[in-house]
Amino acid sequence: MNKPGILDNIRIVLSHTSHPGNIGAAARAMKTMGFNSLYLINPKHFPDGHANAMSAGADDLLVNAVVCTSLDEALEGTTLAVAVTARHRDLSHAVFTTRQAAPQILENAVNCKIALVFGTEMSGLTNEEVNKCQMLVTIPSNPEYSSLNLAAAVQILTYELRMTLPETGLVEAKSRELAQFEDVERFYNHLEQVMVETGFLDPNEPKRLMQRMRRLFVRAQLEKEEVNILRGILSATQKVD
Amino acid sequence: MNKPGILDNIRIVLSHTSHPGNIGAAARAMKTMGFNSLYLINPKHFPDGHANAMSAGADDLLVNAVVCTSLDEALEGTTLAVAVTARHRDLSHAVFTTRQAAPQILENAVNCKIALVFGTEMSGLTNEEVNKCQMLVTIPSNPEYSSLNLAAAVQILTYELRMTLPETGLVEAKSRELAQFEDVERFYNHLEQVMVETGFLDPNEPKRLMQRMRRLFVRAQLEKEEVNILRGILSATQKVD
Repeated sequence: MNKPGILDNIRIVLSHTSHPGNIGAAARAMKTMGFNSLYLINPKHFPDGHANAMSAGADDLLVNAVVCTSLDEALEGTTLAVAVTARHRDLSHAVFTTRQAAPQILENAVNCKIALVFGTEMSGLTNEEVNKCQMLVTIPSNPEYSSLNLAAAVQILTYELRMTLPETGLVEAKSRELAQFEDVERFYNHLEQVMVETGFLDPNEPKRLMQRMRRLFVRAQLEKEEVNILRGILSATQKVD
Repeated sequence: MNKPGILDNIRIVLSHTSHPGNIGAAARAMKTMGFNSLYLINPKHFPDGHANAMSAGADDLLVNAVVCTSLDEALEGTTLAVAVTARHRDLSHAVFTTRQAAPQILENAVNCKIALVFGTEMSGLTNEEVNKCQMLVTIPSNPEYSSLNLAAAVQILTYELRMTLPETGLVEAKSRELAQFEDVERFYNHLEQVMVETGFLDPNEPKRLMQRMRRLFVRAQLEKEEVNILRGILSATQKVD
């Protein structure tokens, strides 16, 4: 039942995890569902004996974990970053449930790198982090008590993706070459720069302009070549000035 | 999204749990998915500070937990007991995946009591325990590493059931009055007694006769009245001798 090709393209990113035991428990949860790519952004304690103890035999994932200093670094090479969140947010993203999102995530993972991004135990992901993701996924839960443990959230996401595998039946490979995270971020920066330079965007009162832009381009799922063209246009406008 | 009526009819039964922290984590997992009925069979340490710590605000479930001394006691009043197991077993039960089983479980829970039974951390459920259940459910996992944490298994089962709720859309109440666990067990005992008395079953070499009988009646989902009739027949055969 393992389809290593697809699941290997999905990395689990844990941002600023406080308790190393949760990192170990998350690694165990991942491995039970056939996932092995773990990225850690500024973990409070790592490596750590508690992480190893809680991993219960999944310590190979800890040994191979990639420790990063920023979300940008953790998302390098990905074409889709999925923010996993419990809270409802007043943001630009469309929100999917785990079950709604799973087929889309797997489809993208056929030949692209995907990240599932989990926030801290206490406060989840920051708005800035969510903003760098292209999809927002929420785990349906008891509205009166939605306090999911971090590793439990990882368990549910990876379980849902594994359960969706047989149904997708190795969906056909996309012929589109999607833009990678860092290319799209450079485009956003470039765009913002141009908007500021032109006076369209007041950096002291940015409102939600960039969020709205992101929303537009997220829906489009930008291709690599499209980003090149967009940036070419931006550069061209700057040269005119 | 809560349908308290249905989920309240589903109890989580943890058999001989070694680590109280797992009991607390299981309670937390349950509560996030809207479940609140927890039964514990001979827990090694309970109540215990580790259980409270790991429950993280779900300690009301621990306070109200029913501590039992046997599986029979924990299953009293139920019409369907579901054994959750990782291992494949050479037993009489049909095995369902979590996703296959969820609609059946919910349908039964509309107006009957259901138990989801989880074994110990080290060795799961005993064959004897599984034999007292009417359905066997397995969580699909990585064949090379299926070492699910107990609370993680509870999380997946309760998540799957919660996710199935909207689809079932409050299925129509069954008009059949199903037999309760203890009635069916008394019937099995009665049947076995008659089989032994008649020399059909050699207690020193029982083979799988009773398992096969159980399998037959499990498929039938016995009604209360049917059990009465069956036992009436058994009693009648005994009086003739």
